[in-house]
Amino acid sequence: MRTKIAIQGIKGSFHHQVAKDYFYQNVAVDECLSFEELVDSLLRGDSDQAVMAIENSIAGPIIPNYALIDKNNLHIIGEHYLDIIQNLMALPGQKIEDIQEVHSHPMALLQCMDFLKKYPNIKLVEDKDTAETARRIHENQIKGIAAIASETAADMYNLEIIAPSIQTIDNNMTRFVILKKENSFVSEDEINRASIKFELDHKRGSLAAVLNVMSDCKLNLTKIQSLPKIETPWKYSFFVDVTFEKYEDYAKAKALVSIMAHYFKVLGEYKNTKPLLESPN
Amino acid sequence: MRTKIAIQGIKGSFHHQVAKDYFYQNVAVDECLSFEELVDSLLRGDSDQAVMAIENSIAGPIIPNYALIDKNNLHIIGEHYLDIIQNLMALPGQKIEDIQEVHSHPMALLQCMDFLKKYPNIKLVEDKDTAETARRIHENQIKGIAAIASETAADMYNLEIIAPSIQTIDNNMTRFVILKKENSFVSEDEINRASIKFELDHKRGSLAAVLNVMSDCKLNLTKIQSLPKIETPWKYSFFVDVTFEKYEDYAKAKALVSIMAHYFKVLGEYKNTKPLLESPN
Repeated sequence: MRTKIAIQGIKGSFHHQVAKDYFYQNVAVDECLSFEELVDSLLRGDSDQAVMAIENSIAGPIIPNYALIDKNNLHIIGEHYLDIIQNLMALPGQKIEDIQEVHSHPMALLQCMDFLKKYPNIKLVEDKDTAETARRIHENQIKGIAAIASETAADMYNLEIIAPSIQTIDNNMTRFVILKKENSFVSEDEINRASIKFELDHKRGSLAAVLNVMSDCKLNLTKIQSLPKIETPWKYSFFVDVTFEKYEDYAKAKALVSIMAHYFKVLGEYKNTKPLLESPN
Repeated sequence: MRTKIAIQGIKGSFHHQVAKDYFYQNVAVDECLSFEELVDSLLRGDSDQAVMAIENSIAGPIIPNYALIDKNNLHIIGEHYLDIIQNLMALPGQKIEDIQEVHSHPMALLQCMDFLKKYPNIKLVEDKDTAETARRIHENQIKGIAAIASETAADMYNLEIIAPSIQTIDNNMTRFVILKKENSFVSEDEINRASIKFELDHKRGSLAAVLNVMSDCKLNLTKIQSLPKIETPWKYSFFVDVTFEKYEDYAKAKALVSIMAHYFKVLGEYKNTKPLLESPN
């Protein structure tokens, strides 16, 4: 049976691009119109793996997706980084002066705000998906409305790019995780990254103590976030991403933190594919 | 001149409710259709203060709003907590069987997902604002579409509540901050809470060192979040909220951390009005 990958959005979306890059060009995809549907596709077994955006270098973490992974006990088995290039597109022949409304995903609108602010007469309308708007404009031959989407979407739905690369910040990277319902066996030698969740009591200094242990075990913290504990307002869980060179260092930290914390859970242990973008300071 | 308060959304929105609770019942409001507009209203001087949702006890922090406060150098001068009760409402006489679509803000849809999942035939449509959908249904006498909004919105736009209190988690609290363009003078005696931002170099253990200092200075960390540094992908800033008993303890921590960090900024020093919901562990 051919592997099926659940993506958020339709073909031509950035999720589709990631599925093609991470797996292979003509991978079979299950188009899901929300992240909830994406998780359901995985849980029902309609798809074997799923691609889910988790963090953007500009807008930050996509918080509800952390909760979805956690609540449904999904496993992060990999990650992929995509440079997001946003383009303004409309029916062939349409010019910027013809556009009354721009429809796109809220994140895409946010990413292009500096460009959009130059056209205060154009109304911004939030939509479910970047590529879907492109498809709708094409299918219904809608004039006066432009989409913000990928070049792939313009090609796929025969739209003309009025303004290319309109995102405010050029270096606009999104991190996607690859999810499975059941954990995959990966050799410890290949693992150099983990996503964990833990809960601490409210004692002063308890988080500092945990971070000290991680630092002593040579773990690099690449991300930390306190998130409210569902059903217990203002009690916080911590979601932490770490990288490490040796699995045994990580294993030691994991053993210690799971004793120190009220609750400890591994969301995924996988291979870091992060592009080397960091300055060396 | 009468004080004008910028709110996100129209009258009947949860932001309007907070403005009424925090200031006074018939406060003059400037209705802003996005958080960007809310900030612009403050910067232009169209309003004196603004109410901005910053964190929800279920969905977590509203990340782009942190960036808006930071980028525009706004000052947090207070906070307010509101218990969010969501209701399904439609034109009088409409029943749940008559409803084909529910329109609301993505956060509201998310908060009511368990209820909405019981009606898989009802299409969910994301909208800008909870109250605005209610107003549109009323003004255009739209049948077959329901809104999810506050009881105030139902009263204000003459809609009937089909299903009250449909949020999944009963204890659904949102934290709002009160913003000003210029800082207000507040007596140090009244301050027991601060929101700060700092950047650290990528050295292992640097965050643990800062948290140790905070703990030594008797600061309680109520929230921590790493956020990407705009224009420098995957370099992180930290947004931290703390509470304290004595301003002098906080002042000491502030002096130390501003030396340890590459960059240090106070987003606001104010009075903690947090309801006492935490269990004493």
